[in-house]
Amino acid sequence: MRGIPRLSALIEALQVLPGVGPKSAQRMALALLQRQRPGALHLAAALTDAMQGIRECRTCRNYAEAEECSICSDPRRDGSVLCIVESPADVFAIEHAGGYNGHYFVLHGRLSPIEGIGPAELGLDRLESRVRDQSVEEAIVATNATVEGEATAHYVRQLIGGAVPNVTRLAQGMPVGGELEYADGGTILYALRGRRRLGGE
Amino acid sequence: MRGIPRLSALIEALQVLPGVGPKSAQRMALALLQRQRPGALHLAAALTDAMQGIRECRTCRNYAEAEECSICSDPRRDGSVLCIVESPADVFAIEHAGGYNGHYFVLHGRLSPIEGIGPAELGLDRLESRVRDQSVEEAIVATNATVEGEATAHYVRQLIGGAVPNVTRLAQGMPVGGELEYADGGTILYALRGRRRLGGE
Repeated sequence: MRGIPRLSALIEALQVLPGVGPKSAQRMALALLQRQRPGALHLAAALTDAMQGIRECRTCRNYAEAEECSICSDPRRDGSVLCIVESPADVFAIEHAGGYNGHYFVLHGRLSPIEGIGPAELGLDRLESRVRDQSVEEAIVATNATVEGEATAHYVRQLIGGAVPNVTRLAQGMPVGGELEYADGGTILYALRGRRRLGGE
Repeated sequence: MRGIPRLSALIEALQVLPGVGPKSAQRMALALLQRQRPGALHLAAALTDAMQGIRECRTCRNYAEAEECSICSDPRRDGSVLCIVESPADVFAIEHAGGYNGHYFVLHGRLSPIEGIGPAELGLDRLESRVRDQSVEEAIVATNATVEGEATAHYVRQLIGGAVPNVTRLAQGMPVGGELEYADGGTILYALRGRRRLGGE
C-alpha cells in the first residue's frame, strides 16, 4: 500500500471490526474499491448514522433511537415481568425466539472485578430503582451460564430479591437437538437435576 | 433490530464486506456501538476518503491517488521489465516479497467469456500500446496458475509477443517449505519438468 495513503488508512481503519486482521482488512479494502464503491459509501453513511443516532433507552438500557426503546414504550408488553440480560444481542436473541412478552433490562456486561466492571458500570442502581418504583412480579435473570454470568446473577438476586416476589433463572439442560454422547458433564448434571415427569407439563 | 432502523440499516450495509453475512454483521454492529464508536466514525471517514480519492494509474491501472502511481513515476524503477498481474493485491504481494524492480500492468481480472470479461475489460488495448510505445525488454506474465489465468497468459503472449523480445511466465513447482507428501500431482509434474542441476544457478 506504499504510495496509496488512503488505502493504507482504510486497511488500518477496517481493523476496528471484530475478527478483522490486516490480511482480511486488505482483502476487504481491495474488494470494495474494485466492485463495491457505492456500497462502501453507503456503509460509511450507515456507520455515521448509527453511531450518532443510537443511544441507550433511559428505562432498560437497550439500544434505541428515541428516549425510550420500542419495547418499553409498547403498551401491549407486560411490565410486570422483567428479563435481565448481559447485552442487546441477548435481547435480539430472545425476541427472535418469540414467546416472551415482558420487559428487559440490559446490563451491558457482567460483574468482573479484574476488568474493573462493578455494579455501577452495569447500571444496577437503575435496576434497583426500577423494581422499587414499578411493581415487578418476576425478574428472570438471563445472564449467561458462565462463571461471571452466574456470579452476576447471584449479586442481582441479592440486590432485588426484597422487592421482587419471584427471581428466576433460565433453565439449564440439554439444548434442542443435542445428543447426550457429545454433551459435557456439567450440562448432563444440570439436565439430570432438573428432570421432569414424562407427560407432565 | 425491530424498532432500531439505524441498527438494521448498519447490519444490512456491513454485508457489502466480503465474507460478512447477517450474523457477523450483527456482531460487528453491536461491538462498534458498545466499544468502538470513535473507531467506527473514523472508519466511515476512511471509507469515504478511499472511495472518492483512489483511482487507477493511467499507465499501469494499479490504484493511485494521482494521475500516475508511485511505481510508474519512480525514476529508479526499471521500465524495460513489465510484470502483468490480475489484481492490485498481486502487486502488493510481489512488492512485499521484494526483489522486483520493474514496472507493472494490472488487468483487474482474467479472461472469462462466461462472465463477459474480454480483452477490452482487461485494458489489453492499453497494454498493447504501452509495449509498442515504450521499449519493453521482458514481460513477465504473472496471472494466476488457474485455468483462466493460464488462458489469459496465452492470449497476452500472442498479443504482445511481436513487440516484446522476452515474454516469460512465473516458475511453477514446489512452494518454499512444501512437502512432497502433501503436494498435488500437477505441482509435482511441474516441479519435475522444471528441475535444475544441483549447485547450478
